[in-house]
Amino acid sequence: MGPVSTEGDITPEPRLTRKGRATRERIVTTAAGLMFERGVAGTSLEDVQATAGVSSSQIYHYFRDKRALIRAVITCQTDAVLGAQQPLLGRLDSVTALRQWRDLLVGFQRERHYEGGCPIGSLAGELAEVDPEARAALATGFDRWEAAIRAGIQAMRDRGDLPSDANPERLATALLVALQGGLLLTQVRRDTSALEAGLDTVIEHIASMTVR
Amino acid sequence: MGPVSTEGDITPEPRLTRKGRATRERIVTTAAGLMFERGVAGTSLEDVQATAGVSSSQIYHYFRDKRALIRAVITCQTDAVLGAQQPLLGRLDSVTALRQWRDLLVGFQRERHYEGGCPIGSLAGELAEVDPEARAALATGFDRWEAAIRAGIQAMRDRGDLPSDANPERLATALLVALQGGLLLTQVRRDTSALEAGLDTVIEHIASMTVR
Repeated sequence: MGPVSTEGDITPEPRLTRKGRATRERIVTTAAGLMFERGVAGTSLEDVQATAGVSSSQIYHYFRDKRALIRAVITCQTDAVLGAQQPLLGRLDSVTALRQWRDLLVGFQRERHYEGGCPIGSLAGELAEVDPEARAALATGFDRWEAAIRAGIQAMRDRGDLPSDANPERLATALLVALQGGLLLTQVRRDTSALEAGLDTVIEHIASMTVR
Repeated sequence: MGPVSTEGDITPEPRLTRKGRATRERIVTTAAGLMFERGVAGTSLEDVQATAGVSSSQIYHYFRDKRALIRAVITCQTDAVLGAQQPLLGRLDSVTALRQWRDLLVGFQRERHYEGGCPIGSLAGELAEVDPEARAALATGFDRWEAAIRAGIQAMRDRGDLPSDANPERLATALLVALQGGLLLTQVRRDTSALEAGLDTVIEHIASMTVR
């Protein structure tokens, strides 16, 4: 397996026509859906081809191989996961907003009948040890997520709602950790109580630090 | 896929001779090691056979199919994971003990070069949606783990170190959640800071509740 690289495997998007971009996007979203349902190992390029209604040569026009497609799926899922939490995720700058975000995340799991876990976390469980480039892409996805959480907590501290010795980076990491662990246990137990316990404990901790 | 059942798939152990038990155990620990390294999908019964130095008919003597072997692997990994945390895990009845346990878990990840994540959690990521019997076995594994954590926190409350309105069940769940999320992020980032941030936040929260 070669070094981590994101160049040369994917046809650069700017070269694509509007129709080309639409086809590429259909391939990626189809692959993302299948991999979320059946796992990466359980999804072949032939499955993607049949479900997306494209030819084998179309897939290979956009993606050198399954690994290149997997990396596009990781970016697509990161965009989808972060997008689904907007506008709340971009402004987690109060305990009230953190609690609303917690309710949103718990609600998503109920709607999904507790299935699937985190679309990013479950890719991580399957790919982290077998595909170093996928691992790097997943780390980037988690970093984007954590940065969005951190921005709100940083704003709380800047505004004086949290004491100056509060550590927004550490608290944001603890929230992302609670979310990932909570989603995994939700998936295994078919019940959101672990997700609730994990997020609530960190949010209560943040609330206990607030100056007012 | 049939309903959850643990009967009929595995030859009952009491019927085995000492040599038979040893062979069965070698098959299970070999499969557990391969699945931890390569994932479940990346481990065939032929791989297990070759690595364990047993014949195909020996594997089928003990396990009806790969799924039956997977369930035995889940139990084996649960025993191994819980065993590796002893004697601490059995007596997490003080903030000091919780911090020692946190250090032990962080140390394990360093020794392992941050690879592999949680042996139970990574099986969960791969199996929860595709194998309902495996999901049930994984839920049992997490329940055993959580009960061991809870016992210590319950003892703290019974002794009066935590107030009577403290919820040992919820706090134990929050610790297991932090551990699972922290191990997943450790694996993806090749760094234990998320595991530390997650566990420390919950332990600090417990410390802030202590009566003395």
